[in-house]
Amino acid sequence: MVRRLSVSPPGPGLHEITAQVARVVADAGLREGLCTVFVQHTSASLTIQENADPAARRDLERWLARLVPRDDPLYTHTTEGPDDMPAHIRAALTATSVSIPIADGRLALGTWQGIYLWEHRDRASERQLSIHVGP
Amino acid sequence: MVRRLSVSPPGPGLHEITAQVARVVADAGLREGLCTVFVQHTSASLTIQENADPAARRDLERWLARLVPRDDPLYTHTTEGPDDMPAHIRAALTATSVSIPIADGRLALGTWQGIYLWEHRDRASERQLSIHVGP
Amino acid sequence: MVRRLSVSPPGPGLHEITAQVARVVADAGLREGLCTVFVQHTSASLTIQENADPAARRDLERWLARLVPRDDPLYTHTTEGPDDMPAHIRAALTATSVSIPIADGRLALGTWQGIYLWEHRDRASERQLSIHVGP
Repeated sequence: MVRRLSVSPPGPGLHEITAQVARVVADAGLREGLCTVFVQHTSASLTIQENADPAARRDLERWLARLVPRDDPLYTHTTEGPDDMPAHIRAALTATSVSIPIADGRLALGTWQGIYLWEHRDRASERQLSIHVGP
Repeated sequence: MVRRLSVSPPGPGLHEITAQVARVVADAGLREGLCTVFVQHTSASLTIQENADPAARRDLERWLARLVPRDDPLYTHTTEGPDDMPAHIRAALTATSVSIPIADGRLALGTWQGIYLWEHRDRASERQLSIHVGP
Repeated sequence: MVRRLSVSPPGPGLHEITAQVARVVADAGLREGLCTVFVQHTSASLTIQENADPAARRDLERWLARLVPRDDPLYTHTTEGPDDMPAHIRAALTATSVSIPIADGRLALGTWQGIYLWEHRDRASERQLSIHVGP
């Protein structure tokens, strides 16, 4: 089963999508299986991270922004704005797809794990994800 | 088929789990398929790396420890110890899930590839993995 | 269904393999499903990146080459040449497997997404990939 999911992140950083993905898994009605989340963009990505302290997510965003700064003289791909090439690099360093087993009819996430869309651009349009659930 | 696997890494670095994953694949008895390994933590991750020279794995650990140092004034999520926020960042830069095709009844790994749990914390408790094998 | 794919990248950087992967998906003849691409090496990796401006791909290669330089005194695994340990690190930071849903019989890639083999060594031999397509 494949379902589309649209997400509108308010700005750069980690935006939780666990509930939306869990709903797709519930709809599939499988007791065991595999759920794969895929983001159809190259300037946003996915990560599975701590869902407890929001400071951890903010630190992740700030650390990555520092590692991949704007206005780096290395960049030659600059026509789409100063946040575009850093966004591609940030996406390459994180994940475009994540796969999570399904056990007892639910995502087999750890207690403190959430699924996040990691937005890398300042003013992102709506982001499209594709979710596959299989046996 | 979904199976749980518990691993107790002695400390930070890459700890091979290829044999345990291969056993799950053998139990599944599929000639062709896909095996997905998922780690249920956000301060440990997965990687597929060279299984020959242990120096390569030690260099990976040392390089990542240098890229993501402790005691970075950027961190605000510090309540869980100086190795916790670096562990989250290290996990975000590596993989929470890896998927390996199954061909001729076995993991289609390259000759020099091994599957590793990458522990990022100093004193990790037992780590839980979920392994899915599908057709 | 599992198929092998051999690719001979001319040198370091991103080499598109979207058409070859799409052909495997077309052969499978599934309307919905999941396609997983796996690279059987630890000094080459995979990424899904922008397929429009080649400058974006060149910047990705140059940025990663700068982050993971050669002749780093940290390296102790040096017997396979100065580009070998950087290649392992670059592979660990990017992806060994990517999974893409199949919808309407085709890879559910975004408009600007292409699948790339990221070669990390100077003189790579032929690279082997394993592609799984399942329901």
